Amino acid sequence: MRTAYHEQLDALSSLLGEMCGLSGRAMERATQALLQADLVLAEAVISDHDQITAMSAKAEESAFVLLALQAPVARDLRSIVSAIQIVADIDRMGALALHVAKIARRRHPQHALPEEVNGYFAEMGRVAVELGNSAQDVLITRDPERAAQIQEEDDAMDDLHRHLFSVMMDREWKHGVAAAIDVTLLGRFYERFADHAVEVARRVIFQAIGTYPNDDALTVPNN
Amino acid sequence: MRTAYHEQLDALSSLLGEMCGLSGRAMERATQALLQADLVLAEAVISDHDQITAMSAKAEESAFVLLALQAPVARDLRSIVSAIQIVADIDRMGALALHVAKIARRRHPQHALPEEVNGYFAEMGRVAVELGNSAQDVLITRDPERAAQIQEEDDAMDDLHRHLFSVMMDREWKHGVAAAIDVTLLGRFYERFADHAVEVARRVIFQAIGTYPNDDALTVPNN
Repeated sequence: MRTAYHEQLDALSSLLGEMCGLSGRAMERATQALLQADLVLAEAVISDHDQITAMSAKAEESAFVLLALQAPVARDLRSIVSAIQIVADIDRMGALALHVAKIARRRHPQHALPEEVNGYFAEMGRVAVELGNSAQDVLITRDPERAAQIQEEDDAMDDLHRHLFSVMMDREWKHGVAAAIDVTLLGRFYERFADHAVEVARRVIFQAIGTYPNDDALTVPNN
Repeated sequence: MRTAYHEQLDALSSLLGEMCGLSGRAMERATQALLQADLVLAEAVISDHDQITAMSAKAEESAFVLLALQAPVARDLRSIVSAIQIVADIDRMGALALHVAKIARRRHPQHALPEEVNGYFAEMGRVAVELGNSAQDVLITRDPERAAQIQEEDDAMDDLHRHLFSVMMDREWKHGVAAAIDVTLLGRFYERFADHAVEVARRVIFQAIGTYPNDDALTVPNN
């Protein structure tokens, strides 16, 4: 039997999912702003960030109200505690997109990135939006197969990140230290974005089925 | 009247405080390992990290049990929800110390840092241990003045971080791109460590008195 309580819990999951989707799209747009040195787009990502912050506050409050009014136990309690933890991860995904947009804005009218690494960032932006969408799906469906796909997307991000570093370490790097610093920080932001998406999926699946698909291969998000 | 419930809540705060102190000391030892290219010390920080992870799990479980058995409301409920959020911040502080130790290990027997920046990192290590201790005090005392001090320590960390970047951007930087990448990532780890300590204090004080000292000047940890 569906209860009002479970409907509210589903509404909370939907809200969290929507936030994941928004964060992924924010990262996609921040990436475009970065690649095209597009100030208007960078500003839009920065001002739209308030929306994710407001949704975080709403999700936290909604979890709090469920705890206060329903005093859930066992599995239902775990769901809500997970939701509170997940909010922090998604909030951070949004903040990382914001950081990317801010670097694009700071370097405008110059490009922050040397052309040589544009391809890596275009690809990392593409993976980020996939990660946001996949995390959204996992939150709604609690499907372990979809969660395993997030793990693959994270592996792809890690590969891109590693390649990016090897491009910079190459003796042929001619763009100086300032560009290397920007590329290092930016690369780290995309990598962390992916780690948080993995963490969202890990919490949902662990909470739903008590184990994470392919747990041994799990990238610890603290790496 | 003190109830068993409030004793358990205090025990949880103590545990969180202890974790903050441990994270600060982990960062201090990781800094030494970095400055002295001390492999044994780096390995010790890495293996001791399990202790912080175990304490995180214990703190989460303790918060969960308090929710399940006591079904707290209002202010007590907010305390426990805060505790769950604080665990994630402290866990991350420990992970950042771990990252520093791992870079020291990866570069051994070489020094990861050019001698020119040793002073900055020695100072950042000193501030990190202060931040860990201050966060511990704030968790136990809920003293807004002590929380304001964390804000000052974070400002000191931000200044060090900014100076570090200006050293690298200087035309006289002769240590190449690889060293700049390490210094960029390491600097970021210390900065984030401080941000999380600020966030711990912010949550404690906000929960205790409904406002944060000097809220306008608050460094948003997502920066």
